[in-house]
Amino acid sequence: MDNLKVLFHVNEPERWKRTLLNIINFLNDVGQENVDIEVLANGAAVSAYANANKCQIAESSSEIEHSCGIASGDLLEQMNKLTKMGVRFVACRNSLRMKSLDENMIYSYVTVVSAGITEIVKKQAEGYAYIKP
Amino acid sequence: MDNLKVLFHVNEPERWKRTLLNIINFLNDVGQENVDIEVLANGAAVSAYANANKCQIAESSSEIEHSCGIASGDLLEQMNKLTKMGVRFVACRNSLRMKSLDENMIYSYVTVVSAGITEIVKKQAEGYAYIKP
Amino acid sequence: MDNLKVLFHVNEPERWKRTLLNIINFLNDVGQENVDIEVLANGAAVSAYANANKCQIAESSSEIEHSCGIASGDLLEQMNKLTKMGVRFVACRNSLRMKSLDENMIYSYVTVVSAGITEIVKKQAEGYAYIKP
Repeated sequence: MDNLKVLFHVNEPERWKRTLLNIINFLNDVGQENVDIEVLANGAAVSAYANANKCQIAESSSEIEHSCGIASGDLLEQMNKLTKMGVRFVACRNSLRMKSLDENMIYSYVTVVSAGITEIVKKQAEGYAYIKP
Repeated sequence: MDNLKVLFHVNEPERWKRTLLNIINFLNDVGQENVDIEVLANGAAVSAYANANKCQIAESSSEIEHSCGIASGDLLEQMNKLTKMGVRFVACRNSLRMKSLDENMIYSYVTVVSAGITEIVKKQAEGYAYIKP
Repeated sequence: MDNLKVLFHVNEPERWKRTLLNIINFLNDVGQENVDIEVLANGAAVSAYANANKCQIAESSSEIEHSCGIASGDLLEQMNKLTKMGVRFVACRNSLRMKSLDENMIYSYVTVVSAGITEIVKKQAEGYAYIKP
């Protein structure tokens, strides 16, 4: 059987929790060796990728208000665990800019793409299912 | 012409009303003989599948708080009518557990799948359009 | 390369702003000559298509409450600009009726289809990616 390919689209911070729960249940159901999962965050949802430690340094040295530390410890722990299971976390560069987040302020496991919508369109063209939790 | 295949994804209780209205308008537009419709509910939206009568019995004999009786009479009537027109209503088992709903507490026309996300991915792979009302 | 085909689905008025921003960023990323974009509005989101001037005339000559003038000047300006760049704006006729909007009360660049869901299903069958901003 070919791998089940899925793109999860998250554009609101409050939807992260259910998105990660959806992914965990999905992995439990079909097994991580049978799936190819990407999570594309754009809009305000990219704040969950911000590394709170790096943001604090930036905030203390500038007047800009950053959108940091949105992700609670639980979310971070789950994202780390899912990354190790092969889930790819992706951020829209436009959205990071909108939130005044430099790319060196986000977690290292996050991949940045030039535009989130382009990524979603391309993935669907490659046969990924689209899910908006 | 091949049938138009659609999967509606509902994960919030307040979106049931518009989802059923979307389906009714769609059926009126193209005719029930030309469509293949599945409604997949996960998350809090599965509460609408709870049979209020069976839930009350369960509640009176246990201390567990069940998520019952969310669906109003109107929704139930519409779901019944749509079931007779061939629409399939499906629930995610993980979500039922999360809401403390035993499978014998939900309406008999509802099919239960092991994981809602797996069902959505498989249906898209089979050529179903995905709609999130 | 084939054009990237995308259908954006908007069913809540408050999601117009982010939808148009998504489209602008997408066009900036890939270029308008490489995309085929349709925006399908149903539900309460069709109010943004109402031409405030025509609505005021209708309101002053009737007792019916119309859902007009929801779109702010910024949104209108963006829609006009995007129309000139080839983006197609489409409305669900059922939703217009629900909002008491006659077809002569909406902007001329909007195309009306008999049922929004049918349009979404057909576009996905034609290879359009589906995005719900």
